[in-house]
Amino acid sequence: METLTPRIGIIGGGSWATAIVKMLCDNDQDKEIYWWMRSAQTADHIRKYRHNPSYLSSVEIRVPATNISNHIRETIARVDILLLNVPAAFLKEALTGIEPSDLRGKKIVSAIKGIVPDENMIIGEFMHVRYGIPFTDIVVISGPCHAEEVALEKLSYLTIASSDTKFAAVFAALVNTRYIKTNVSDDIYGTEYAAVLKNIYAIASGICHGVGYGDNFQAVLISNAIREIKRFVDAVHPINRDIKESAYLGDLLVTAYSQFSRNRTFGNMIGKGYTVRSAQLEMNMIAEGYYAVKCLYEINRNYEVNMPICKAVYAILYERQSPGVTMRALSEVLS
Amino acid sequence: METLTPRIGIIGGGSWATAIVKMLCDNDQDKEIYWWMRSAQTADHIRKYRHNPSYLSSVEIRVPATNISNHIRETIARVDILLLNVPAAFLKEALTGIEPSDLRGKKIVSAIKGIVPDENMIIGEFMHVRYGIPFTDIVVISGPCHAEEVALEKLSYLTIASSDTKFAAVFAALVNTRYIKTNVSDDIYGTEYAAVLKNIYAIASGICHGVGYGDNFQAVLISNAIREIKRFVDAVHPINRDIKESAYLGDLLVTAYSQFSRNRTFGNMIGKGYTVRSAQLEMNMIAEGYYAVKCLYEINRNYEVNMPICKAVYAILYERQSPGVTMRALSEVLS
Repeated sequence: METLTPRIGIIGGGSWATAIVKMLCDNDQDKEIYWWMRSAQTADHIRKYRHNPSYLSSVEIRVPATNISNHIRETIARVDILLLNVPAAFLKEALTGIEPSDLRGKKIVSAIKGIVPDENMIIGEFMHVRYGIPFTDIVVISGPCHAEEVALEKLSYLTIASSDTKFAAVFAALVNTRYIKTNVSDDIYGTEYAAVLKNIYAIASGICHGVGYGDNFQAVLISNAIREIKRFVDAVHPINRDIKESAYLGDLLVTAYSQFSRNRTFGNMIGKGYTVRSAQLEMNMIAEGYYAVKCLYEINRNYEVNMPICKAVYAILYERQSPGVTMRALSEVLS
Repeated sequence: METLTPRIGIIGGGSWATAIVKMLCDNDQDKEIYWWMRSAQTADHIRKYRHNPSYLSSVEIRVPATNISNHIRETIARVDILLLNVPAAFLKEALTGIEPSDLRGKKIVSAIKGIVPDENMIIGEFMHVRYGIPFTDIVVISGPCHAEEVALEKLSYLTIASSDTKFAAVFAALVNTRYIKTNVSDDIYGTEYAAVLKNIYAIASGICHGVGYGDNFQAVLISNAIREIKRFVDAVHPINRDIKESAYLGDLLVTAYSQFSRNRTFGNMIGKGYTVRSAQLEMNMIAEGYYAVKCLYEINRNYEVNMPICKAVYAILYERQSPGVTMRALSEVLS
């Protein structure tokens, strides 16, 4: 496949998908880009005006109009590399009607940061179990990388993880640009779980801010969070990894500290007293961490890793515990 | 000593010293507090109006007027525990005329985050070498803790480090309050060096911001910085330590990410094109990292630890290298 022009299909029309389309277009290797999104109206708009009307609208989309579709089977049939980029909660719905045979022989790249609800599996695992994709054909893309800064062409680093590091490197070479650098890793589990967990800690960080804690406490919270991530990923998939690398710690930092983080914004509203429902209505985007913490909570029943921060977020979001009281209790066990 | 009322002398009149005076006053253990500052005018003002006119002016100072002095020998003579809290660059000057015999039998607590210039020693080391203080009588206080948030009584965690962890615990019990929690550690070297180094990385962070890098890059920079800290402290003082603890990683985060950080502000001005001199004139406080990076650069000649970020900051501040070009070159070696 490496000798032919790669044909890449992006599944999803959100801001991160738009950012990845931009990287793929700005990268100078030959490739064909196909793009699927649910909304026929959005697809029409992009075909006509070459801009995504809803996300990163400033980015010029240089994908041929005929390659933009709202029929997922069509997009899948035309590509060798399928890049999944819908919210984890909607993945099953997006893939309705798709059978293992439709995906046979294709590489699957996951840019999703979440856990498939009900299944309680990370994306790579789910694609392996449900569609029989071999793990060597699965790639994970991780940050630290806010889509908004890709639109601004601010220098960013991605980690491309696969148990087939050779293909990871091939894919990395398709997204490298003047403003995107890539690291290659063989740690799918650690990279995916860290990407999922960081959204939960960003919610925690927002809640603490909303409740009134300051920067001093925030630093303690995040230093405890990275230890919690390390404990969890080492329990789930014990390999030798340095959790201080950009894909783990960096990804946590950009999410927990950035103004662009919707998980942090969501948490902040919860901390200020909004209900989950009103916070969700107020925001136009989905805070992945809201779903992730529930899945994580259930998955962790098998591992029983000590995760006081996740537990506090779960209690606040799903058991209607008071943010103020819960965070105060949490502060007693942090160090 | 533990059975008598402890007599504590604070040396220095800046914001961190004022914050520590506040903690000591708010803590309910019996103690006598003495406070020295260079300026007779400031001492007069505090005696009369019970507020520090220059730093954290909102904090009410409940130290008896007769215990506030601008004669350092007098303050030292009256106390058992001497808490050093002047900028590292001024420590030798502040202690002019003080002899080892003046300090005999006293505990020394360093709240200074810096290296003594010319000597290239951290504070504990300097007090040991110059004044013969045994290491068991030396304690280091470290954050993550911005003084400004102590004034606001925002929950903060301190680490109290000493090779005599029993005395560290005794001292911790003197500063614990409703809004201050303490961890005890035996790692003086790691705690002090991490506290010094983080100011350099906060300058780096500010420079990058000033030059135009975004949050994505910032996260990569800080994740590389903590690895750089780990390499250095492990080379200087190899013990088993978890660099993700609050005293190390937390302290780095609060300094590199907070709006209160003067090192970050200084770096930001440099990144925007100010000269070192004009940035220093513009700011009312000293950016400790400016001095620290020079000392560190010299100390590291003995260890030759790979520290590309420190090297870049040194090149910009002391070798007049362009912030933009230097940071671009740095970005090539980060991961």
